[in-house]
Amino acid sequence: MVAEIITIGDELLYGQILDTNAHWISSKLSETGIKVTWRTTLGDVEKDILDSFATAVNRADIIIVTGGLGPTLDDLTKPCLAKFFDCPMEINEEALKDVTRLFEEMGRELTPINRLQASLPSCCESLSNQLGTAPGMWFEQKEKVLVALPGVPAEMKYLMTQHVLPRFKKKLLLPEIYHKVIKTAGIGESYLADKLDDWCKSLPTYIQPAYLPGMAEVKVRLTAMGKERALLEKEVDYYIDQMKALAGRYIYGYDEDTLESVIGKILKSKNLTLATAESCTGGHLAHLITSVPGSSAYFKGGIVAYDNDIKRNHLNVSNETLTEYGAVSEETVREMAQNVRIRFNTSVGVSTSGIAGPDGGTKEKPVGTVWIAFADDQGVTARKLMLGNRDRVINIERASRAVLNFIRLQLS
Amino acid sequence: MVAEIITIGDELLYGQILDTNAHWISSKLSETGIKVTWRTTLGDVEKDILDSFATAVNRADIIIVTGGLGPTLDDLTKPCLAKFFDCPMEINEEALKDVTRLFEEMGRELTPINRLQASLPSCCESLSNQLGTAPGMWFEQKEKVLVALPGVPAEMKYLMTQHVLPRFKKKLLLPEIYHKVIKTAGIGESYLADKLDDWCKSLPTYIQPAYLPGMAEVKVRLTAMGKERALLEKEVDYYIDQMKALAGRYIYGYDEDTLESVIGKILKSKNLTLATAESCTGGHLAHLITSVPGSSAYFKGGIVAYDNDIKRNHLNVSNETLTEYGAVSEETVREMAQNVRIRFNTSVGVSTSGIAGPDGGTKEKPVGTVWIAFADDQGVTARKLMLGNRDRVINIERASRAVLNFIRLQLS
Repeated sequence: MVAEIITIGDELLYGQILDTNAHWISSKLSETGIKVTWRTTLGDVEKDILDSFATAVNRADIIIVTGGLGPTLDDLTKPCLAKFFDCPMEINEEALKDVTRLFEEMGRELTPINRLQASLPSCCESLSNQLGTAPGMWFEQKEKVLVALPGVPAEMKYLMTQHVLPRFKKKLLLPEIYHKVIKTAGIGESYLADKLDDWCKSLPTYIQPAYLPGMAEVKVRLTAMGKERALLEKEVDYYIDQMKALAGRYIYGYDEDTLESVIGKILKSKNLTLATAESCTGGHLAHLITSVPGSSAYFKGGIVAYDNDIKRNHLNVSNETLTEYGAVSEETVREMAQNVRIRFNTSVGVSTSGIAGPDGGTKEKPVGTVWIAFADDQGVTARKLMLGNRDRVINIERASRAVLNFIRLQLS
Repeated sequence: MVAEIITIGDELLYGQILDTNAHWISSKLSETGIKVTWRTTLGDVEKDILDSFATAVNRADIIIVTGGLGPTLDDLTKPCLAKFFDCPMEINEEALKDVTRLFEEMGRELTPINRLQASLPSCCESLSNQLGTAPGMWFEQKEKVLVALPGVPAEMKYLMTQHVLPRFKKKLLLPEIYHKVIKTAGIGESYLADKLDDWCKSLPTYIQPAYLPGMAEVKVRLTAMGKERALLEKEVDYYIDQMKALAGRYIYGYDEDTLESVIGKILKSKNLTLATAESCTGGHLAHLITSVPGSSAYFKGGIVAYDNDIKRNHLNVSNETLTEYGAVSEETVREMAQNVRIRFNTSVGVSTSGIAGPDGGTKEKPVGTVWIAFADDQGVTARKLMLGNRDRVINIERASRAVLNFIRLQLS
């Protein structure tokens, strides 16, 4: 059972739009257990579109087409489908109801050109699109299925999730597939793989592991395939418990969790408040923390102390410390974390100071050297990061995420 | 003269990796004057790869292939090319020199498997890759050109820029194409288009305009086509001068400029310093400013005053203001901007306070209501933004960028 994806639109070929649809459909079909073997992108040209349908139907069992479903002259997908399946265009009553309702909701009149949105090749089944005016289309012929979807990503995703994937699951009697993503921070991919080597080998054949490295984190995805979802979930949980015994300290969350949402949950549950004192991360740490809805419940605020004057006057870092050890030092970040905690009257204070680059590095303190500290009523802990001479924005991002993970570890 | 792009790799088909290569190559070929008509993605399967070559050579004059050039067994592109062009694999001396040098530089020994990187189909010309071990390959047969490039984006881009595009320009006698991007902020696409309507119509046929909307900005790209670059540049400059007369206030820069780099240049040239006082933007404004290398020359620091306590104690916002007008008010942001300027001893102070969402909105102050202020030795100016009930992170981004544009306008 193999699938092929066809995306249609001049704007894709000219590189004006990044084709995220093909990527998203690929991953969803793979997750559902359908193998994608070809992807084709072509322009709004009748001959090319018809050629691509013929080739695809010849090679694959399932064909997903996106784009070119609008009502204007340069949208050719619908007339091409009518021609390819040799059936006339006609108004689809269900689709017309949807379009009419949508225009009513917007308080706008249904013009003749909008009405055309409900005109579909008579041999297809319409798939109701609640987010836009172009319905999806389901064609079935000689054991092959061709599905045509609008190119607007939100509408395409809606139709795939609500109609197409459930139908495939039912029709193809696909096995139940259960994915669980385990998120780790503070350990590199190869070190984690070392720790988990025996565990990976011990997994049954119906549970597949995959390492997905990201920015300052490594995700492990387990994909279980079988008949009963409840059973799969139980099995996966069992193996995650085993993984916890090997690398529990690095696991910060699962699936949709982020480091910033996880530390938010920890702070809230312990009734703690937080303040930040940032030098090299320049506000990005506070930004990550405040990007979580409801973060005002535990985050009181922070100081971006870029200039040493600000470190002295607003964070009480002593002149001696700055002169003797420099702004990028254990001593400085310790004072920053302690004093922001006192001045902002919070349970926890954290701090950063380092050299983000591209300039400012020395032999002793090369670009990528960053000190971070954590202070609470138990005292202060500091840590040094060596991030290497990479891109400035990447160094800022990695340093900020390291602090989030540091908060997590100190609080748990 | 039409081109086709083939990207090879199972990881693309399964949706593990977003195919940014095809997108980048598409836009570069278009910019060079070569039309892309098809893009195909397929897996590491010999038959499929050979089929895709045959189809592409039949349809297009130029074929660009990426991926599958590594030395391991699952990399099939090189043997398939040898088969397709019917010529044996042999060690390419130039490519061997490059690989040997690269390993010397890394202080590592050249193993037999690395040596295989220099083994290429004998009928191709090798394209020297200074960034990695896989050389590019240039095949030419019966007026058709097929180029194979490694899938690592940085290496592919290097080879395209250094070798492939200049060769096409020379070989195909392509017209000179000159692009200039004019960047605007503070005006929506449709309003800008209204202002520029007559100007667009007055452009000669060899200068094409395009609107490219982005996050809180609209870019206008002019593409000029002709014989002499110097002449094209002069012509485009002439029309940009005309555009300035119509919408000059909104133009913040050109090509690689960003709002944050532009305000940095202005502050530096005027010898001014800056401090930020952020509530709803939570540090993101300071982050944007400090993401510019060298920003420590003009940015002294900031306060993220999420909690009203911090606004009172560290920004001297009066209790009366907070009680009478609320934290999200003109009065509050005026005091924040003025006081951060005084407390941080800078020439300029700016501030934000608003409701980023998803919660916290009221009828009078719905989600997306944001006040911003600018203070310098001339006084304070405040402005209200209504960003609408969108995503929290988007509201934070748009509010931060609005402040950057506000700084630009106040200083120029």
